[in-house]
Amino acid sequence: MSAEKTGDSTLSKEHNPTYQVIGTRPIRQDGTDKVTGRAQFGADIHLPGMLFGAVLRSPHAHARILSIDTSQAETVPGVRAVVTGADLADLEDKVTELGEGTINLRHQSWNTLARQKVLYYGHPVAAVSASSPHIAEEALALIEVTYEVLEPVLEVCAAMHPNAPLLIEDMYTDELGQKSEKPSNVAAHYQTRIGDVEKGFESATVIVEKEFRTSMVHQGYIEPQNGTALYNPDGQLTIWCSTQGSFGVRDQVSEILQIPVSKIKVVPMEIGGGFGGKNPVYLEPLAALLSKKSGYQPVKMTMSRSDVLAATGPTSGSYIHIKLGADSDGKLTAVEATMLYEAGAFPGSPVGSGMGVMFGPYKIENVLIDGYDVLVNKPRTAAYRAPGGTNAAYAAEVMIDMLSEKFGMDPLEFRQLNGVKNGDRSTFGATYQRIGYQETLEAARKHPHYSAPLEKANSGRGVASGFWFNYGGKSSASASLNPDGTVSLIEGSVDIGGSRTSIAMQLAEGLGISVDDVRPFVGDTDSVGYTEGTYGSRTTFATGWAAYEVSQKLIKQLVERAAKLWEVHPEEISYQNGGFSIGEKHMSLKELAGKLDETGGPIMASATVRPGEYGPGFATHIVDVEVDPETGKVTILRYTAVQDVGKAIYPDYVEGQIQGGVAQGVGWALNEEYMYDPQGKLTNTNLLDYRMPVALDLPMIDTVMVEVANPGHPYGVRGVGEVPIVPPAGALANAIYQAVGVRLNSLPMSPGQILEALQAEKD
Amino acid sequence: MSAEKTGDSTLSKEHNPTYQVIGTRPIRQDGTDKVTGRAQFGADIHLPGMLFGAVLRSPHAHARILSIDTSQAETVPGVRAVVTGADLADLEDKVTELGEGTINLRHQSWNTLARQKVLYYGHPVAAVSASSPHIAEEALALIEVTYEVLEPVLEVCAAMHPNAPLLIEDMYTDELGQKSEKPSNVAAHYQTRIGDVEKGFESATVIVEKEFRTSMVHQGYIEPQNGTALYNPDGQLTIWCSTQGSFGVRDQVSEILQIPVSKIKVVPMEIGGGFGGKNPVYLEPLAALLSKKSGYQPVKMTMSRSDVLAATGPTSGSYIHIKLGADSDGKLTAVEATMLYEAGAFPGSPVGSGMGVMFGPYKIENVLIDGYDVLVNKPRTAAYRAPGGTNAAYAAEVMIDMLSEKFGMDPLEFRQLNGVKNGDRSTFGATYQRIGYQETLEAARKHPHYSAPLEKANSGRGVASGFWFNYGGKSSASASLNPDGTVSLIEGSVDIGGSRTSIAMQLAEGLGISVDDVRPFVGDTDSVGYTEGTYGSRTTFATGWAAYEVSQKLIKQLVERAAKLWEVHPEEISYQNGGFSIGEKHMSLKELAGKLDETGGPIMASATVRPGEYGPGFATHIVDVEVDPETGKVTILRYTAVQDVGKAIYPDYVEGQIQGGVAQGVGWALNEEYMYDPQGKLTNTNLLDYRMPVALDLPMIDTVMVEVANPGHPYGVRGVGEVPIVPPAGALANAIYQAVGVRLNSLPMSPGQILEALQAEKD
Repeated sequence: MSAEKTGDSTLSKEHNPTYQVIGTRPIRQDGTDKVTGRAQFGADIHLPGMLFGAVLRSPHAHARILSIDTSQAETVPGVRAVVTGADLADLEDKVTELGEGTINLRHQSWNTLARQKVLYYGHPVAAVSASSPHIAEEALALIEVTYEVLEPVLEVCAAMHPNAPLLIEDMYTDELGQKSEKPSNVAAHYQTRIGDVEKGFESATVIVEKEFRTSMVHQGYIEPQNGTALYNPDGQLTIWCSTQGSFGVRDQVSEILQIPVSKIKVVPMEIGGGFGGKNPVYLEPLAALLSKKSGYQPVKMTMSRSDVLAATGPTSGSYIHIKLGADSDGKLTAVEATMLYEAGAFPGSPVGSGMGVMFGPYKIENVLIDGYDVLVNKPRTAAYRAPGGTNAAYAAEVMIDMLSEKFGMDPLEFRQLNGVKNGDRSTFGATYQRIGYQETLEAARKHPHYSAPLEKANSGRGVASGFWFNYGGKSSASASLNPDGTVSLIEGSVDIGGSRTSIAMQLAEGLGISVDDVRPFVGDTDSVGYTEGTYGSRTTFATGWAAYEVSQKLIKQLVERAAKLWEVHPEEISYQNGGFSIGEKHMSLKELAGKLDETGGPIMASATVRPGEYGPGFATHIVDVEVDPETGKVTILRYTAVQDVGKAIYPDYVEGQIQGGVAQGVGWALNEEYMYDPQGKLTNTNLLDYRMPVALDLPMIDTVMVEVANPGHPYGVRGVGEVPIVPPAGALANAIYQAVGVRLNSLPMSPGQILEALQAEKD
Repeated sequence: MSAEKTGDSTLSKEHNPTYQVIGTRPIRQDGTDKVTGRAQFGADIHLPGMLFGAVLRSPHAHARILSIDTSQAETVPGVRAVVTGADLADLEDKVTELGEGTINLRHQSWNTLARQKVLYYGHPVAAVSASSPHIAEEALALIEVTYEVLEPVLEVCAAMHPNAPLLIEDMYTDELGQKSEKPSNVAAHYQTRIGDVEKGFESATVIVEKEFRTSMVHQGYIEPQNGTALYNPDGQLTIWCSTQGSFGVRDQVSEILQIPVSKIKVVPMEIGGGFGGKNPVYLEPLAALLSKKSGYQPVKMTMSRSDVLAATGPTSGSYIHIKLGADSDGKLTAVEATMLYEAGAFPGSPVGSGMGVMFGPYKIENVLIDGYDVLVNKPRTAAYRAPGGTNAAYAAEVMIDMLSEKFGMDPLEFRQLNGVKNGDRSTFGATYQRIGYQETLEAARKHPHYSAPLEKANSGRGVASGFWFNYGGKSSASASLNPDGTVSLIEGSVDIGGSRTSIAMQLAEGLGISVDDVRPFVGDTDSVGYTEGTYGSRTTFATGWAAYEVSQKLIKQLVERAAKLWEVHPEEISYQNGGFSIGEKHMSLKELAGKLDETGGPIMASATVRPGEYGPGFATHIVDVEVDPETGKVTILRYTAVQDVGKAIYPDYVEGQIQGGVAQGVGWALNEEYMYDPQGKLTNTNLLDYRMPVALDLPMIDTVMVEVANPGHPYGVRGVGEVPIVPPAGALANAIYQAVGVRLNSLPMSPGQILEALQAEKD
């Protein structure tokens, strides 16, 4: 890794004087638990008197439920309760934000347990609690459901056809804010219109036009969803689950079960990956419902891998058409695009953010982009790392590559020419403040990889850039000082990628103490203030900021205590590197901590933040591939990911985020796809058939961290987790074109696809 | 109960305008869990891979350990680890405060596992962890310990003899602050000297002199001690136990095992009574040691009832000699007293507080009291409700009764004459501020009980008063506001007597909302600021105060938010009864809570307090008894307890505290005592032979709450839990004298004792 090399650019130096903690690589506080297997994940929970729940799922992609008979199941010895959609209240439409997207809680309830219709293969129809998992399974088999099978809608263009069967019969399109006249499968139509595209294309000397298709793909987290609930006779509900956001679970369950949030306590367990997929609730409300109906005993539910693939939220497959023009200097003049995103069974595809990400790195005066959120008989989509970005950027970056080729320009040079700079207006209307896109292009051009010769036959090099908005959101933290000078830190952010440590480091830096003296602790919803989930690349940014605020509040109180001891005014005391001083007098924080009793007792502080500016992130990737013309197999020879990370709090984690994002992007680009049969049954419901990249599929991924400090954060932090998944598909498509001369216009670019394309070339 | 009658005296009215929440009796938040058996106590814990620990205890009261051979025990299949004193570091002397007393951590370590000597029957010598409790027990039997048995020292006067065998051979007396020349069994000699007792007795016309003896007694909590520990390879230690103070456990374990507090997390489970006995640690450090030695698996340990009686801390037996004089007007002129308190095997008897409590209710100009903390071969004593007070007050109140009889004065009138008032100096030197002793005497005289005729033969009525300092100490609380306007409250005080609710009520009162909108939650040592244990009658007083401070901090932030929304200055906004208003505009807290997002995100606040003034408590009790001259059995006909409670936050709990204190005082007075054989073996190690009062032994105990608001608390709260155990023994002794004419000078006043006394009268 070349983090040290580029770990502190002049820019971040100028911002960052001399950090003591930030930029170091301490031992993570949860390390031992994780490597010894002691860490408790959702499925590890065991409660006295615990029952086991199981879910009956629809075998049909689209069907009307004529009747459900649970009487036989209820008689099975050991069965404690059976619930169906009838046990859930029908909610009003209520759209609320959830983990980088929005969710309509009426639909969320319907997705929890089907009502009159099932809308996708795997849609929950009923649930059972029993004294053993096996009895629960047995009981499922005895629930009799009569279906009227309906024609499934599986393809996004077909779903938009006026005569297409309707999934939600009373759903009207939000047509640019206006309710459509008649219902359809189109949940929403968004539009970005900037400048005048007609004029823009008139001034263009070169225009390229192309259409792209991408498949529905899964986040591929290792740990399946789970949820355990204990419903108390006094109406108090406790939920243990692995989720990206304990407060989000509390809010959703509160709505679905119509319980005030103050009656619900959500205890977040350790989480085995989420990537956006663990923001919505699936089992939690069912477990709660079953616990209540089972006489207030705890009920534990866990998904199988096939449940996860069939019935949780993947990200949208899409159809994208782009027309892009540039003038004689190679300057982009106009873009016109249509984007159809699969929402799945209920509204909520990330087409909106896809529209923004697509040409996020480029300066284009004239923009007309239409985005459609379209229902199909597939699981309701959820966020997936930079939601909607990868497929959009794939299409855009191929177009950019086509243009740079036409102009005979180096693709990075072409991007430098057209890339956004500070103060430029983005293609989605916002104006960029301090950004580091050009710095990533510069670093990429200078990188040895970019000038290294390509020796092998059928090998090629591709580049692509990517953009992500990043996000701020609400975060809380509180801390109390121990008599030995150490600090207990409670924060509400679930730790997925090591955020316990990256947040603790910001508290330690703020206090001027060692991070080993901070003990971070992820609190449940009763023990810390409201904190949004771990998504939107927001955790180290926003919760870290809250920790910084806590450090400042602690210092203020500590200085007052020191002033008491020395009988001076607080203003006279200076605090630096964990030490207080006035004139000759000096006292360390540890000394003072031991004297808190004499000065008024213990000290604790809490803070909540809600940053408005997020510090957008940009990345530029370089990849070399070799394509086997016989098999169509793509081998990645070398991969370099350059990214503006603002300020790397914990460089190892940042590099890990970049490498992980690339790995997922590679899988999306080359192999991953949901395969449905004509009846809408998912046919690849295991990790052998749903092909994610393994170590053998990937080279060492080199990372270059450019640090263009974010002025909107006390330590210059930018979100880093999502940008790296945006460029890989485009970079690979461009590299494949360089290698074998075919531009693939659909994902995944699997061996079969490539062979077909090579064949088509020949003919 | 007559709480409503006397629930708001003019005094508290003047202090208390119109409380909305305080003084009401809402449903307690932990009620359902407690009555449905769902509440998790220490013994309910179950962890994956949990091992079971057992303790080998000394069969001798005093012996030298010549050798310990654990080799056989270690070979038993299923045994995971064996520990002895050799596994603990030898600590330096370090005396620190602990739950209404002090503890020398060097001795605490020695009490955890014996070193060269065992000092009492039941002293831990070794501990074992195994895969089942039975295997652990079996292994204990295979540990071979060779003892050199020494002569036990069981009686406090004998222990002071120069030639008495020494328990701790290198212990020197703290002789009024000076280290004694040669070691002895006397740990400390304290003295109170005020005025000139010789002159005082010269001015006296009546002098009474008497000596008293009392036995060691147990707190009698229902739940035995327990402790479960999980030691992590990274040095993090988690302890689950039922304790009165999670931070106290953290501090003691930190010292005994020499681990920084920041590495230890103590999770307090629900607790089945403590009364002072659950401040010291017994099993917790052993469980931690065993967990580490067992390969970092969790180890659970629980005590049997006989373990509890033989080896945890009861309160001191004592010898007390008093000489008391009064002048011709019946005014007390001088007191001279000697008090010998059994410390048990290690220093730390409550003789110091006994010295203060003894004549706490009385104004005496000339005082000379000598107190001695004396080692005997019995378990190391611990705090017990108003530590050292009951036996001291018993002696004093009998003397007061003798004097009032000699002056032919009504005993309450005599107390009114000599009782302390605001501004008086106490017999321990401090000056009383606003106290309510005279108010209790007035209420007692007016109470119908006091004027009711005594019909039965051999029946009599006795009165006695009692004093307790009460305590403040460190408390922390924090709270976050939920979007629905409810509040999640985290506090560090273990809930023994309903303090979740009494603390939540003070937050609710401060915020002007319903207590049902507050969700209190007892945090572990990582999730809340430092909070001293639930002792010293401090919890509702100090932690309630912290909750009040939190409410004020929340209001400040809320007003700022309302100001943002209305675009006015915060000062212009008034807040009352959960509503904000400015001119015509009004907004409820719930409305505003829903708008926090628009105004800057969530709100949380935390506060820590450390009150310096505590608001001392006084009580006066009236009891009628009937004595059976044939059997010596005492039957309590009627009991009325009058107490100044400052302000009753939750009247039911206050009444419960008073009734509970009386019940324990009755047991101490009439039946309870540790019975040792000549070799120092405890012979009554179960609750049949250790005779605590049961429902049949007690009448309904009537309570009268006088409310003399404590000006040193935002709501006028005084501690109420301890005073009520102080007067019963004296009141009963005085009633028995009225009934059958004998003044008993030792506790318990059991049937045998009474028959002997009656016989002695006859001879």
